[in-house]
Amino acid sequence: MGIVSCVAYSEGCRVREVPLEETSEVLKQPEGFVWIGLYEPDEALLRQVQGEFGLHDLAIEDAHRAHQRPKLEEYGDSLFVVLRTVQADIEKHDVAFGETHVFAGARYVVTVRHGASLSYGEVRKRCETTPQYLRQGPGFVLYAIMDFVVDHYFPIVDELEEELARLEEEIFGGTHRGKEIAQRIYQLKSHMLTLKRAVSPLIEVCNRLVRFDRTLILPETRLYFRDVYDHVIRINESVDNMRELLTSALETNLALVSVRQNEVMKRLAAGAAMVAVPTLIAGVYGMNFEAMPELHWRFGYPVSIALMVGACAYLYRRFRKSGWL
Amino acid sequence: MGIVSCVAYSEGCRVREVPLEETSEVLKQPEGFVWIGLYEPDEALLRQVQGEFGLHDLAIEDAHRAHQRPKLEEYGDSLFVVLRTVQADIEKHDVAFGETHVFAGARYVVTVRHGASLSYGEVRKRCETTPQYLRQGPGFVLYAIMDFVVDHYFPIVDELEEELARLEEEIFGGTHRGKEIAQRIYQLKSHMLTLKRAVSPLIEVCNRLVRFDRTLILPETRLYFRDVYDHVIRINESVDNMRELLTSALETNLALVSVRQNEVMKRLAAGAAMVAVPTLIAGVYGMNFEAMPELHWRFGYPVSIALMVGACAYLYRRFRKSGWL
Amino acid sequence: MGIVSCVAYSEGCRVREVPLEETSEVLKQPEGFVWIGLYEPDEALLRQVQGEFGLHDLAIEDAHRAHQRPKLEEYGDSLFVVLRTVQADIEKHDVAFGETHVFAGARYVVTVRHGASLSYGEVRKRCETTPQYLRQGPGFVLYAIMDFVVDHYFPIVDELEEELARLEEEIFGGTHRGKEIAQRIYQLKSHMLTLKRAVSPLIEVCNRLVRFDRTLILPETRLYFRDVYDHVIRINESVDNMRELLTSALETNLALVSVRQNEVMKRLAAGAAMVAVPTLIAGVYGMNFEAMPELHWRFGYPVSIALMVGACAYLYRRFRKSGWL
Amino acid sequence: MGIVSCVAYSEGCRVREVPLEETSEVLKQPEGFVWIGLYEPDEALLRQVQGEFGLHDLAIEDAHRAHQRPKLEEYGDSLFVVLRTVQADIEKHDVAFGETHVFAGARYVVTVRHGASLSYGEVRKRCETTPQYLRQGPGFVLYAIMDFVVDHYFPIVDELEEELARLEEEIFGGTHRGKEIAQRIYQLKSHMLTLKRAVSPLIEVCNRLVRFDRTLILPETRLYFRDVYDHVIRINESVDNMRELLTSALETNLALVSVRQNEVMKRLAAGAAMVAVPTLIAGVYGMNFEAMPELHWRFGYPVSIALMVGACAYLYRRFRKSGWL
Amino acid sequence: MGIVSCVAYSEGCRVREVPLEETSEVLKQPEGFVWIGLYEPDEALLRQVQGEFGLHDLAIEDAHRAHQRPKLEEYGDSLFVVLRTVQADIEKHDVAFGETHVFAGARYVVTVRHGASLSYGEVRKRCETTPQYLRQGPGFVLYAIMDFVVDHYFPIVDELEEELARLEEEIFGGTHRGKEIAQRIYQLKSHMLTLKRAVSPLIEVCNRLVRFDRTLILPETRLYFRDVYDHVIRINESVDNMRELLTSALETNLALVSVRQNEVMKRLAAGAAMVAVPTLIAGVYGMNFEAMPELHWRFGYPVSIALMVGACAYLYRRFRKSGWL
Repeated sequence: MGIVSCVAYSEGCRVREVPLEETSEVLKQPEGFVWIGLYEPDEALLRQVQGEFGLHDLAIEDAHRAHQRPKLEEYGDSLFVVLRTVQADIEKHDVAFGETHVFAGARYVVTVRHGASLSYGEVRKRCETTPQYLRQGPGFVLYAIMDFVVDHYFPIVDELEEELARLEEEIFGGTHRGKEIAQRIYQLKSHMLTLKRAVSPLIEVCNRLVRFDRTLILPETRLYFRDVYDHVIRINESVDNMRELLTSALETNLALVSVRQNEVMKRLAAGAAMVAVPTLIAGVYGMNFEAMPELHWRFGYPVSIALMVGACAYLYRRFRKSGWL
Repeated sequence: MGIVSCVAYSEGCRVREVPLEETSEVLKQPEGFVWIGLYEPDEALLRQVQGEFGLHDLAIEDAHRAHQRPKLEEYGDSLFVVLRTVQADIEKHDVAFGETHVFAGARYVVTVRHGASLSYGEVRKRCETTPQYLRQGPGFVLYAIMDFVVDHYFPIVDELEEELARLEEEIFGGTHRGKEIAQRIYQLKSHMLTLKRAVSPLIEVCNRLVRFDRTLILPETRLYFRDVYDHVIRINESVDNMRELLTSALETNLALVSVRQNEVMKRLAAGAAMVAVPTLIAGVYGMNFEAMPELHWRFGYPVSIALMVGACAYLYRRFRKSGWL
Repeated sequence: MGIVSCVAYSEGCRVREVPLEETSEVLKQPEGFVWIGLYEPDEALLRQVQGEFGLHDLAIEDAHRAHQRPKLEEYGDSLFVVLRTVQADIEKHDVAFGETHVFAGARYVVTVRHGASLSYGEVRKRCETTPQYLRQGPGFVLYAIMDFVVDHYFPIVDELEEELARLEEEIFGGTHRGKEIAQRIYQLKSHMLTLKRAVSPLIEVCNRLVRFDRTLILPETRLYFRDVYDHVIRINESVDNMRELLTSALETNLALVSVRQNEVMKRLAAGAAMVAVPTLIAGVYGMNFEAMPELHWRFGYPVSIALMVGACAYLYRRFRKSGWL
Repeated sequence: MGIVSCVAYSEGCRVREVPLEETSEVLKQPEGFVWIGLYEPDEALLRQVQGEFGLHDLAIEDAHRAHQRPKLEEYGDSLFVVLRTVQADIEKHDVAFGETHVFAGARYVVTVRHGASLSYGEVRKRCETTPQYLRQGPGFVLYAIMDFVVDHYFPIVDELEEELARLEEEIFGGTHRGKEIAQRIYQLKSHMLTLKRAVSPLIEVCNRLVRFDRTLILPETRLYFRDVYDHVIRINESVDNMRELLTSALETNLALVSVRQNEVMKRLAAGAAMVAVPTLIAGVYGMNFEAMPELHWRFGYPVSIALMVGACAYLYRRFRKSGWL
Repeated sequence: MGIVSCVAYSEGCRVREVPLEETSEVLKQPEGFVWIGLYEPDEALLRQVQGEFGLHDLAIEDAHRAHQRPKLEEYGDSLFVVLRTVQADIEKHDVAFGETHVFAGARYVVTVRHGASLSYGEVRKRCETTPQYLRQGPGFVLYAIMDFVVDHYFPIVDELEEELARLEEEIFGGTHRGKEIAQRIYQLKSHMLTLKRAVSPLIEVCNRLVRFDRTLILPETRLYFRDVYDHVIRINESVDNMRELLTSALETNLALVSVRQNEVMKRLAAGAAMVAVPTLIAGVYGMNFEAMPELHWRFGYPVSIALMVGACAYLYRRFRKSGWL
């Protein structure tokens, strides 16, 4: 895709869209910065950007290859930040991950998006409406992007929490679908671990940005990173919380499967007893002894049937009482 | 709801209720501070308060949106503290959480309550009865509020501990309600995690306040925060303790379900055997062989019945001995 | 109960028992200290002691309310230490916990005992027999008390370890009391957690005392606290060790319950088979077909019986071989 | 095997292959370094190398004995690094581990390979094509080797992740091979722990190299170690992730085995009932009472058969409905 | 036992065996040190040694009572080290633990052995053959002893790892001895925890010795302690590794027991069905209805038998197919 947009800013206000080649020209002005947005650039383009701003080889390689974990690296006076972006596909109940790499220097911000990722056009627009903040320079742009990325984690967390709530309901609701529940618990855990891998390295990243004492990030901007830090901590806490609950849910589900097995077994036993006893009685009167007075008795048959029914009724009541039926 | 009360204090004593607009007037006095209590204020009111005391944008936003995790933030010379409040609904055996945000500066304390939360009127009254402490200024008021909030966690902890004790009794009391117990263990764990999320960030908050070396909190006030710290540590410890016991309880419950299953199975086996053997005997004498001497024997029938009873008695005794019945 | 004893010491030697009111008089001497022992004092008495030595309000409140967790707090030049004491009731196989609060200043030691707790008369006597150590002052008395308290944990640890050993024996001894074992494992775990809560905060307390660089604790006395530290670490390690073993024991017990269930099921299956097959044979010869040559055969009956016995014998041997019986 | 190659470098360019004895001669030049590759050298050779470069006794012993864990040690101005190498045997689906020991000084790099390990000839070639980097000296060579070793972990991680994915599919796919799955989960866990032991000590090693402030590693080289650090962290994270999933997989598998057991038991119970009820009916009409009107009834037999079939049909439908069949 | 040997060393060479009483005489020489080996000394002897070298009371008490955990303590200029020694009894497959206490000062080393422990005669001999190292003084002797003690842990670790391998084989080998395996897993875990308690405190001890910056341990000696540190870390890692595998093994064993139970149940169900169906058929033809045409039919009997056999064969094939038999 290459360049999505390349705009020069001065005093917190948009000056104009500039072609990439002219950025160095623009930066000859004593003030202002350039904000370039790239989407899955090819190597040639990245090299051109590298030449324009003197970015470090290793950072450019990372930005090209993607598949990095979230991190913050300093190369001399410039920062290189890797973020994992997330985009919920509401219809498919699925989540797609992407990556954003941000290069931030005194006079430039370059964002490189890979994979599923919302355009930062919205961030750009929002920034442009608040020149009093945008005046803080590339440090503020970095904050705005991170804030945007982290804010998009919240719907995912909510979705996972709702799935957990649904699972809890089914576990205790007696739907007897132990197998399906086990599978869904496992998948939820797997999703959560993926989310955690995206979020938890950001704690350290934000922490360092809050304490970052170079001029790239102004003291007033640092307070904003504290806000992002807070969000990250909260998401991380939610994930840990869910994780512990999921572990319990898995064990609870196992316990309930066993409880149900117990019930099945009791019913089996009770049912078996209630058929076996009359069968025994029938067997007794099926014996071929010559001298069995009952056989010749007129009421032998009805009495024996009554005996069977009586035994069943007795057993039934007893099993009921002890909760086996 | 807006402003609950707005009072000026001087030398530890209540001076008078002041309208919000006049607070800046009041603060022209060389000494004293203003303590404002708000309940779910709208944005306009918050902006007014912000203007009055020069509070930071980010803190105001937090105070407006609520849903923060407990934290302590410094904005220049002022403090912003977020607390999660808890209110037990004794009748419903339920717990409601709220939030309190406290802004504390050299000459003001502003509390903003959200959701379920007791009024701090009681705290205010208690403070006013001890002017020797209230003289310590906004730092002491902050302590008084935190102490009040943390003290209200204890009944919840007690309630959870009692529920755990009841659960233990039922697990080992043989009530055979494995399913209900599993559910209650899970819910208790879930409640405990919620409580832990409210309490555990306070450890760090109190820790920082104890070591806080600005003039906002006087050295003698810091000792009081140590007291709050102590309470928080104790609650946290109780929760961790219960958590470990609950994990064991879940596993123990599972083990007992299995043990019971074992017993059911043994009884089933024993019962089956005690019916199957006489049935076999009956079956044998139900055979139609011509040459079966017992059939023609006079005592064939009673002896066969005796045989059945004897076999049952023998089996019964054996199963009893080996603990199967 | 109030004052148990109040004695003045000088140069490591007991001078005389003094009434509480005279202690300030005694402390006008250039040297020596007072050691006061209280048992569940009422508030008036505590206030009197507070007045005598200028103790801090918060510490006095803690000492009055009890139910503190073990901790060490500094109030100016004085120390406030909370210890949890333990007293084994050998006969009842039970353990009672109490609390001891120690105030230690340059010229005084005040111990406040609550609940189950041995008198420190013994500690006092032991100290008085070694004036060369007691000369080190209140710091040494604090050590002597902590050492005494910690030493009384060891029998409890031993008792718990023996119970664990007994449990292991029963788990693997095949007593088949899975339920009772599960309950005892749980209770042991619960006791251990209680012990751990009493002991583990002492690690930090001792650690700080070892490094305590004020004059209250002389350098030579600090080495002694290292000894207490060592004991505490050892107890803590034992408890952690047992905890991990208990977790395994719980799971092992569960596994063995399942193993036993397996055995029961195999026997049930084998037993059922051994009754069902002859029953089938009997059933066959109980059929009423006219044309069943065996029925008219002279040896039909004995042969059919032999067939039944033979089938049983064959099954018995096969089940034996495959370990089902 | 001994010496694989011994080459002198100057200004980042290969000068010439030198015999080991002449290296000291070569190092009399003011600039350049020697890079020696050894494969399972005997002690005599190691001693010779030691003499040439003044390596420490302990490091030489380690290099000779192998079976070290990954580590970084400083001996005066030189570094000694131990790495665990891995080589996947694609055909056998197996993994072989080896060890590489690297001695790095200001003017020399010595690599000692043990066991399964790829030759570093490839690393050497790659370095020689980029003299601008190789100019950075032994520090860069150390980086190149570590990068090469760590890069070879990735295919192993991928293989393990694929095996986990296959396992998940089988667990939830209903293949009913609980036993085989349990075994494969266990083996996967075992392999992962082996990998973790190779990788996780490298976190600390890389961390120290990144911060290493001696002249041996130039500041520009340190950035490269950050790259290795990143890879190591990523592998470690993947392994931890899989580990947690495997634990869940084990439990989930157990739960599913229980669920299946439940199903078997239900079918058993249903099947038993469907045979036992008609057997009872047959038994009843097998009784020998004289006065059984049905026996003399013309349609007695077909009706009784119809009764049996009806009972079965009824039971079948009921069991179907409640999901037992 | 008392004194095992008491030898004076100078310049790294053995001077002569000296009686304990003369050691102070010997130490009047400007150079050299005394190395004393004691085995379970009585208090009198320990007191004599204490007098000779001015050892601290607390250390002497520890050395007398034994039952310490591994630790390193400084008393002024001298060190007191406690080690747990291990001695494998190959024949009994058992392990015996002992303790060694080492006092090391500028001019003396005193080792005190308790319980199962190899003599340090061997260490002494090895040291005497390398005077260039022994010249480093008591610090080196301390290293030599620790190295010797730690080296003896390795065979134990190997033995435990082999036992784990044997267990794995049996778990997956289908020996069906779930109970015995559970017991052995538990015991292995228990042994490993004992080993861990001996080894893990040494990490901290070695770590401190490596950084120990007093003259007692020369800088060149410190490198050697790094070697011991390495060994200890490796053992500790192995133990942790095994521990995690054992936890999995316990759960896997439990899963396999359940899997087997499943199989038993399936066979039980299949077997029951295959007997119950013919029994039902026999029951039907055992009914006494007058109007049962089959009974009078010539081939009734053989056809009914064929029916039974056919039903069995059908069921057998079906159960085979679904894997129940």
